[in-house]
Amino acid sequence: MTEATDHKQKMQDVQAKQRAKVAERVDPGRGLVLVHTGKGKGKSSSAFGVVIRALGWKQTVGVVQFIKGKWITGERRFFEEAGNVTWYSMGEGFTWDTQDKARDIAAATAAFDKAREMMQSGDYDLVVLDEINIALRYEYLSVDTVLEALKARSDRTSVILTGRDAKPEICDYADTVTEMGETKHAFQSGFKAQRGVDF
Amino acid sequence: MTEATDHKQKMQDVQAKQRAKVAERVDPGRGLVLVHTGKGKGKSSSAFGVVIRALGWKQTVGVVQFIKGKWITGERRFFEEAGNVTWYSMGEGFTWDTQDKARDIAAATAAFDKAREMMQSGDYDLVVLDEINIALRYEYLSVDTVLEALKARSDRTSVILTGRDAKPEICDYADTVTEMGETKHAFQSGFKAQRGVDF
Repeated sequence: MTEATDHKQKMQDVQAKQRAKVAERVDPGRGLVLVHTGKGKGKSSSAFGVVIRALGWKQTVGVVQFIKGKWITGERRFFEEAGNVTWYSMGEGFTWDTQDKARDIAAATAAFDKAREMMQSGDYDLVVLDEINIALRYEYLSVDTVLEALKARSDRTSVILTGRDAKPEICDYADTVTEMGETKHAFQSGFKAQRGVDF
Repeated sequence: MTEATDHKQKMQDVQAKQRAKVAERVDPGRGLVLVHTGKGKGKSSSAFGVVIRALGWKQTVGVVQFIKGKWITGERRFFEEAGNVTWYSMGEGFTWDTQDKARDIAAATAAFDKAREMMQSGDYDLVVLDEINIALRYEYLSVDTVLEALKARSDRTSVILTGRDAKPEICDYADTVTEMGETKHAFQSGFKAQRGVDF
């Protein structure tokens, strides 16, 4: 009885604190900017989890894939079939597969033009710029170009930028930055990337 | 011309190394166990991103939600409507909303019975145990019970366990552990949780 009462009291305190915390919060009145970075797994998959969330609320979603375009992934198959996401793939594969810097820059620029258009149109609740941090790291896109377009986005639009080595200037501007840290990875233990889990 | 040639050479080296790495890898011949933990955003959303991946490859997926059952989330709405995921919610909300430990234990046990059944049946490629780490942390479930069921799972089945404060014994057993670190969070800046982004 005492343990149960204690538990109840403790949980009531947690509940009260939680409610107070939530009550203080305000609506930003604009979409958020989120960065998923770090060496760990889950940067892109968590962005696609947020896509599902947004779709569950009947929101409108666009995805621009930088770098990974050539790969056939489960998420791409899923959304192509579902047909409820505007999907644009840079279509040139990983940079080490193309081996032509000028072509990579042209492809990244074209993909970003598409992204800018989505962000400014006011037609989207959520735009995912998948692996854009890699395009920034290889200097296929300039940080200034990306920051300017983020600032000029529609108030309606939240944006998620994924990829390791996110630029500090973009993290400074973002509302939420998550660093996916790799504690342990099956690939490092000698296992192949698994369909459905890794791609 | 030299810069372009240098770039090509560099990317060829990266490509060769990457191919060598991939060639060494073997197929585990069984489903993987993944843990998403840490204080940062993206533990559950990245699990739902993996669900999308699996569905894109026409795999069979089950989700058991511990703790968050009462909440209406975008992902739950999405998958309920899509109807392609077996979904079981503990249905008791956050622990600080129920304030009754015996009822929480009973609900968590019932949810885990469902999870065990899914993992052992051989019917699923992927089972997500969402927020189970919280149920373990509050001792609504024992680590031994969960470990035993993971070990007894079908070879076909990969399992993702989410929630902060993952138990070390479960991380030891897992193939992949990702720690989502919170560098910056909009909620901490005073913004309300946003529909479509946070739930």
